[in-house]
Amino acid sequence: MAEYAKMPYNIADDSLADFGRKEINLAEVEMPGLMACREKFQDKPLKGARIAGSLHMTIQTAVLIETLHSLGADVRWCSCNIFSTQDQAAAAIAVAGTAAVYAWKGESLEEYWECSLAALTWPEDDGKGNGPDVIVDDGGDITLLIHQGIEAEKKFAADGTLPDPESTDNAEFKCVLNILKRELERDPRRWHKIIDRIVGVSEETTTGVHRLYQMEKEGKLLFPAINVNDSVTKSKFDNLYGCQHSLPDGIMRATDVMLCGKKVLICGYGDVGKGCAKAMKSNSAIVYVSEIDPICALQACMEGLQVVDPADVIGDIDILVTATGNKGVCTYEMMSKMKNNAIVCNIGHFDNEIEYGTLQAKCKRENIKPQVDRFIFDDDHAVIILAEGRLVNLGCATGHPSFVMSNSFSNQTLAQVELWTERNSGKYKKSVYVLPKKLDEEVARLHLAKLGAKLVKLSQEQKDYLGIDPDTMPCKPETYRY
Amino acid sequence: MAEYAKMPYNIADDSLADFGRKEINLAEVEMPGLMACREKFQDKPLKGARIAGSLHMTIQTAVLIETLHSLGADVRWCSCNIFSTQDQAAAAIAVAGTAAVYAWKGESLEEYWECSLAALTWPEDDGKGNGPDVIVDDGGDITLLIHQGIEAEKKFAADGTLPDPESTDNAEFKCVLNILKRELERDPRRWHKIIDRIVGVSEETTTGVHRLYQMEKEGKLLFPAINVNDSVTKSKFDNLYGCQHSLPDGIMRATDVMLCGKKVLICGYGDVGKGCAKAMKSNSAIVYVSEIDPICALQACMEGLQVVDPADVIGDIDILVTATGNKGVCTYEMMSKMKNNAIVCNIGHFDNEIEYGTLQAKCKRENIKPQVDRFIFDDDHAVIILAEGRLVNLGCATGHPSFVMSNSFSNQTLAQVELWTERNSGKYKKSVYVLPKKLDEEVARLHLAKLGAKLVKLSQEQKDYLGIDPDTMPCKPETYRY
Amino acid sequence: MAEYAKMPYNIADDSLADFGRKEINLAEVEMPGLMACREKFQDKPLKGARIAGSLHMTIQTAVLIETLHSLGADVRWCSCNIFSTQDQAAAAIAVAGTAAVYAWKGESLEEYWECSLAALTWPEDDGKGNGPDVIVDDGGDITLLIHQGIEAEKKFAADGTLPDPESTDNAEFKCVLNILKRELERDPRRWHKIIDRIVGVSEETTTGVHRLYQMEKEGKLLFPAINVNDSVTKSKFDNLYGCQHSLPDGIMRATDVMLCGKKVLICGYGDVGKGCAKAMKSNSAIVYVSEIDPICALQACMEGLQVVDPADVIGDIDILVTATGNKGVCTYEMMSKMKNNAIVCNIGHFDNEIEYGTLQAKCKRENIKPQVDRFIFDDDHAVIILAEGRLVNLGCATGHPSFVMSNSFSNQTLAQVELWTERNSGKYKKSVYVLPKKLDEEVARLHLAKLGAKLVKLSQEQKDYLGIDPDTMPCKPETYRY
Amino acid sequence: MAEYAKMPYNIADDSLADFGRKEINLAEVEMPGLMACREKFQDKPLKGARIAGSLHMTIQTAVLIETLHSLGADVRWCSCNIFSTQDQAAAAIAVAGTAAVYAWKGESLEEYWECSLAALTWPEDDGKGNGPDVIVDDGGDITLLIHQGIEAEKKFAADGTLPDPESTDNAEFKCVLNILKRELERDPRRWHKIIDRIVGVSEETTTGVHRLYQMEKEGKLLFPAINVNDSVTKSKFDNLYGCQHSLPDGIMRATDVMLCGKKVLICGYGDVGKGCAKAMKSNSAIVYVSEIDPICALQACMEGLQVVDPADVIGDIDILVTATGNKGVCTYEMMSKMKNNAIVCNIGHFDNEIEYGTLQAKCKRENIKPQVDRFIFDDDHAVIILAEGRLVNLGCATGHPSFVMSNSFSNQTLAQVELWTERNSGKYKKSVYVLPKKLDEEVARLHLAKLGAKLVKLSQEQKDYLGIDPDTMPCKPETYRY
Repeated sequence: MAEYAKMPYNIADDSLADFGRKEINLAEVEMPGLMACREKFQDKPLKGARIAGSLHMTIQTAVLIETLHSLGADVRWCSCNIFSTQDQAAAAIAVAGTAAVYAWKGESLEEYWECSLAALTWPEDDGKGNGPDVIVDDGGDITLLIHQGIEAEKKFAADGTLPDPESTDNAEFKCVLNILKRELERDPRRWHKIIDRIVGVSEETTTGVHRLYQMEKEGKLLFPAINVNDSVTKSKFDNLYGCQHSLPDGIMRATDVMLCGKKVLICGYGDVGKGCAKAMKSNSAIVYVSEIDPICALQACMEGLQVVDPADVIGDIDILVTATGNKGVCTYEMMSKMKNNAIVCNIGHFDNEIEYGTLQAKCKRENIKPQVDRFIFDDDHAVIILAEGRLVNLGCATGHPSFVMSNSFSNQTLAQVELWTERNSGKYKKSVYVLPKKLDEEVARLHLAKLGAKLVKLSQEQKDYLGIDPDTMPCKPETYRY
Repeated sequence: MAEYAKMPYNIADDSLADFGRKEINLAEVEMPGLMACREKFQDKPLKGARIAGSLHMTIQTAVLIETLHSLGADVRWCSCNIFSTQDQAAAAIAVAGTAAVYAWKGESLEEYWECSLAALTWPEDDGKGNGPDVIVDDGGDITLLIHQGIEAEKKFAADGTLPDPESTDNAEFKCVLNILKRELERDPRRWHKIIDRIVGVSEETTTGVHRLYQMEKEGKLLFPAINVNDSVTKSKFDNLYGCQHSLPDGIMRATDVMLCGKKVLICGYGDVGKGCAKAMKSNSAIVYVSEIDPICALQACMEGLQVVDPADVIGDIDILVTATGNKGVCTYEMMSKMKNNAIVCNIGHFDNEIEYGTLQAKCKRENIKPQVDRFIFDDDHAVIILAEGRLVNLGCATGHPSFVMSNSFSNQTLAQVELWTERNSGKYKKSVYVLPKKLDEEVARLHLAKLGAKLVKLSQEQKDYLGIDPDTMPCKPETYRY
Repeated sequence: MAEYAKMPYNIADDSLADFGRKEINLAEVEMPGLMACREKFQDKPLKGARIAGSLHMTIQTAVLIETLHSLGADVRWCSCNIFSTQDQAAAAIAVAGTAAVYAWKGESLEEYWECSLAALTWPEDDGKGNGPDVIVDDGGDITLLIHQGIEAEKKFAADGTLPDPESTDNAEFKCVLNILKRELERDPRRWHKIIDRIVGVSEETTTGVHRLYQMEKEGKLLFPAINVNDSVTKSKFDNLYGCQHSLPDGIMRATDVMLCGKKVLICGYGDVGKGCAKAMKSNSAIVYVSEIDPICALQACMEGLQVVDPADVIGDIDILVTATGNKGVCTYEMMSKMKNNAIVCNIGHFDNEIEYGTLQAKCKRENIKPQVDRFIFDDDHAVIILAEGRLVNLGCATGHPSFVMSNSFSNQTLAQVELWTERNSGKYKKSVYVLPKKLDEEVARLHLAKLGAKLVKLSQEQKDYLGIDPDTMPCKPETYRY
Repeated sequence: MAEYAKMPYNIADDSLADFGRKEINLAEVEMPGLMACREKFQDKPLKGARIAGSLHMTIQTAVLIETLHSLGADVRWCSCNIFSTQDQAAAAIAVAGTAAVYAWKGESLEEYWECSLAALTWPEDDGKGNGPDVIVDDGGDITLLIHQGIEAEKKFAADGTLPDPESTDNAEFKCVLNILKRELERDPRRWHKIIDRIVGVSEETTTGVHRLYQMEKEGKLLFPAINVNDSVTKSKFDNLYGCQHSLPDGIMRATDVMLCGKKVLICGYGDVGKGCAKAMKSNSAIVYVSEIDPICALQACMEGLQVVDPADVIGDIDILVTATGNKGVCTYEMMSKMKNNAIVCNIGHFDNEIEYGTLQAKCKRENIKPQVDRFIFDDDHAVIILAEGRLVNLGCATGHPSFVMSNSFSNQTLAQVELWTERNSGKYKKSVYVLPKKLDEEVARLHLAKLGAKLVKLSQEQKDYLGIDPDTMPCKPETYRY
């Protein structure tokens, strides 16, 4: 395995840079929040900050990276999914030199983790080592790598134990252990040096945040974390409206299937599931939902969706979508009972929502085109799996559209500025934080003009009556659900 | 003014009791949550509790009252809106003797406050006075009456000052002061005796809760309060889906107007406004939204609604709906610029969302039928005002449907049980509380079977993976927005 | 039975006239097509015409009647449904003397047919007898009466046979035979005299038109007929958008039931069924459709509706709506298998879509309120029948809204003018005609401004390219389906 | 220019055949109508027929071609649009030898017409010349070529005049004249020989059918034509539901733009426009419609769409879609007033709906990627044109999905069988015909089972009541609009 970090960048094809640049130019018009951040932060508040990012290397992310760069940061980047990179985006960023990028569409698992390592490793030691100051994470993979690294170094220091890749059946974790073992042999303080300088991470996803809160609860969190996912302008926008856009986009690009009249099962009715169900219903599919949470289930009922036990309907389903954040949601047994050419895909986060491993082991695989495979059962019926069970919207389409990502990434930008500028103030401990509601509202405000929306101004009498002044205070209490 | 409290009840027409009973029977089938509470609480946990309620005296409320009665409570009731009583519901409850009811459709303001007083006044002193132990409130009127009463008694005790009805121009507050003055002259410790026994209030609405938090903040709250409004199964159901049902219902019953192709302005895009906008869009109207909160405004944009400054569109609007909780939202000036026979109504809480007083003062009024008036401007164009600017869904239709109210009222029931059974435990201070999320989920669960919905059960492996066990823990963190 | 025709009118309550007039005033603003006809036809083209109408005596019909009157006609009217009269509308028209009205809400079957007779019978003979010149019909009842009358007179003339009311089990047809027998005994040429002057009928409904085409095919049609139903601005508007409005309106006024999450079966997916299904889906119900026509069935599929055999789902259905034009669609056996308090109603035309007779014979009836009955089966479960199985939108609400009826009734007005002004030209034979497409387009055009809609004008180059000039020619070929 | 007809086929890349075959296999599962035709017509009724087709060479068309082949036909094929070919589909068909295919994505105009010529030219003379017996046409290009050819030959025979390519500015018609001139010089009876054997054409589109009726009216139609477009299962399915699917698909693949909250103008509200508007509304865009036909305009109003004069809103529009069948709908002047990066595309038929030529002449062009161009005005704002103004769903996505095309193509198959088997019966004259309604219903019926839909069977009593027997008669009269 090459040592990627020594390369200025590692991408699929430099010649795609021009195309990527044109798409970035288009995206900028659709990302008013990020462009407003560049305008507002001309004093370069991120100057001096080394930022390592692990987040789908798409055109939208390119606009984020260039925003961070414009604010003064020194940026390295990898993707957080083996299929989600848009190679033209990676090329445009890498060739422009805005950031050192290590990402391409269709990485192997080994390559994926080497890219992650490269994003965390500056080639030059600036006196404080060669690690990052701040992290942008999506799903928590590089946060995990660092935490696992620290743990491995501690064990090694205690009794010389090295990580053992043979100790796990999980193909992905095997890659992690391989890297940790190799790096430990090279430098047994590598991760401790990194940890010394990190001022925090801002995390993008429900799943990543869930991990962070667990680490915080167990007292294992090693640096402050800002939960960007739970900004309203993130979770109620990107998770919901983003998936509403990108689920049908992914399915159509992959299969060209007509959705009208098809029976679709959405597993999970959180923000992601809500967006998916809305999209499928809008496309005139007949939508079923499965849930474990009675409140979300009742919401689905109120929207006219049928809340079912998957076992009761699995034989009628044309398209099954997992959106739970859980594992083993779409089992091999379920798929064995589906109609011929039923489509199965995941938009939930990890590929383990679908029992893809069992499918690979037991079925014959017919590849139709990249990210589209038929898995044929012994009885000759098949299911069509999209994006190898990974995120279908990123694997089979181009992820969320620019406008909604501008919201999420404005939150990311504000979080990075917050972590870096408060690095010495003691404001942030080894805990998980959300951005103040006023900033959340500000992110929304930055996106209204693009859509021609105008806000109403309150009279002083109305402000007094409500006890609220939207000019200076948040409009809603902290607990408001939107 | 008659002393209502001495009467066993005060309603429009006893002979409507049979009709009311039949409608209650129908409603019970649609209110599985309340019926499950009766089943579950056969040990009568509300035994000994005097409950005073101020909440729209509808058929659905009748099922709530009979549930509280079935749990052992001694109940008195008034409505919280002069137009919202369904006389057949009041009759069924009063004649059955389940509760002492003081309510009819079309009360005057004076009558309204006398009814409120009557609901708070048991004819017999049980040794602890003749007040209630627990309060069910909707909008906070009887909570306000008590707090104002205490303040008046304090002032009077200090320097003999009596409330002065002439001190206010507000017709409604004048009624309150009249009552306080009269009662103070009869018994200067009336409200203090009441306050001594009250163990708490459970409040139904956004506006009422807003008032409670303000009182808590100012240190003026005199007893514990449970914020029922912010149970998810209340605010995200009744406010949203209830209004979605009852706004078009009210408009159609009042005016029979076709909504297809009409231009509708919804002022406010909170839960209520969201339900209203969805309903109008579903009915093929062209929907405009006005907002002060950029996040809600951006949500409206994402739903394909046009977010506008009302001034820019007012001349094109066919129907204007206020749903803000603020005052002076639909001004006289705005109405003066509307199309002839444009419809104006309020679903937000108080009638002051519309400048109804100015309209009455300056325009000629033509009454079409009860709750439907044309106000004619000097230039001969007119606006049609529904329910005299009060809640259109209750004034012109029958309020929210049973099924969604079963959710809200199951929360009310659980809150009453909680306040009463914990009355001596010190669990609740003079603060505002929400019900635990596990109870919230339980309310939802009770409503799934009626709609044929089934929940998925997690395997142990899945529980471990998620770190969640829905059998014993809430499915979501406190901050989850649904 | 009183001889209604001798009375100037026969309605429920004269004192409702003022209220009716106010509602008529409101409706006129919503009926731009009819108001434009009054404007356009100031030369009174219907002068001298006696018009007899049998069509739901609602506020909207009142505006039609006053339009016909304004064009010079001498009008008599009855309703075409025992429950559909709005008594205030009947009063306003009768008291104003615009037409002689024989109609009230809740007629018995006997009264219904006497009213029909009265509408056909002018008290004075104008030299050509006391019958009408032109007929407005809805469902074909007065057309039927005349045709049956002629046949009875022929039989009587041939061999002295009188109609025998005992020859039928059908309660309604028995009334018809009673009347025919009585009138025959009085004047054996009564109907022949009527037929001599009639210049034609304009028919409103799918069912009435179906009858007319059958009569034409069998050579039995006695006068020209204009099929108003198949004007695009009728069948694709009133049937579709009218029912979309009035079905949920009727269900809600009758039962206050929440539609979200409920399972609804719509029997029939023609224009009426399409409107119903759209309305139920928009209200977040889960919608099933049953059909006999594969094309309509496939349309339902494409809209995301489940096309089922009712037998497969009947036990799960909360609300069943018949919209077929067929008989015996919702059978006693089906209802015996429904859930307790399932709602059953008809919007299709005749009450025989539901096996209401069997229900009456075999079940215990509990009347909840007018037009709402529970029919209780031996096993104690019940179904709720609306409007006694007759049109639910007219029995339980106020029928279609003004705006959409303005389209239908503008067609009616144009048809009446056409039949009367061409009475001597020989243009219309004893056949069924539709209005020319150019008139159909004109009706649409009259309704656009009210909704702020503007049409695009073609350049001469574009007209030449298309070979169409919208100023002088229809925009579409005859076969166009819209 | 090579003489394509001498080549066995002319496509982009043979190596795509395997991929194409896999996609054809998937499509067959989604095209139950075509597969049922293969099953039903095992007696090969098209045996001996030479079929020339000019219709988008997609995967779905491949299944049609293989169906025609399976019924016995000898097939040659070209595309009817320079961008619509899916090269893998062309390869699969060509390599399998099912048909001789002359088509690739991105033909020049010259190549396009040479391909058309090749599809009409069998290399071997079978005794009746080397032309086709039956034609499948889409838009009428090869029908036009033949008719122009005949005319040119007549003129030449009369006075020796040759077609003059210099006589036209239209780039496309210049190609036609070039070919006619060349062929005329080779063989002055070429087209007359072809015309001698042609038994008819079945035409797919609104525009093509419009041309045919004009030719029929002018007495210029040279052979029978079956209007497939106006089969209900074509125009009300493919035009409507197909475009509903493929418009957003095309826009998203081309631009990745978020549709929520965007302002979209749909020019034209026929079947295609209806599908487009529904799709945009379902995707939460704010939708404006422009129309010339008042009936269609009023339909748009009833669906809650704003019917506007484009001039009034053009500056606010984010996306403009032409769907009219007219020319010059989106003018250069309009585009000069649009927002920067506003998207303009056409789904109506010909690229002349947009003034693309003027745009090319006056603006700077920046190509983003294939089929996506920015045209930059002097003031530096730009519009983004998709598919060079040609059909966006075929140029930027993959056209309509298989399921809906199975309906259209089942009609095509039945029309081809009809024309061929009735070739000697005299049933079809030089006129335009539609398929009998019973066949139309049959096409629908073949597609129900795939979606799990079941039809209701009538009892004999019900058949008698309706006067309809769906087993043997059409369910609806000819004029029924669905």
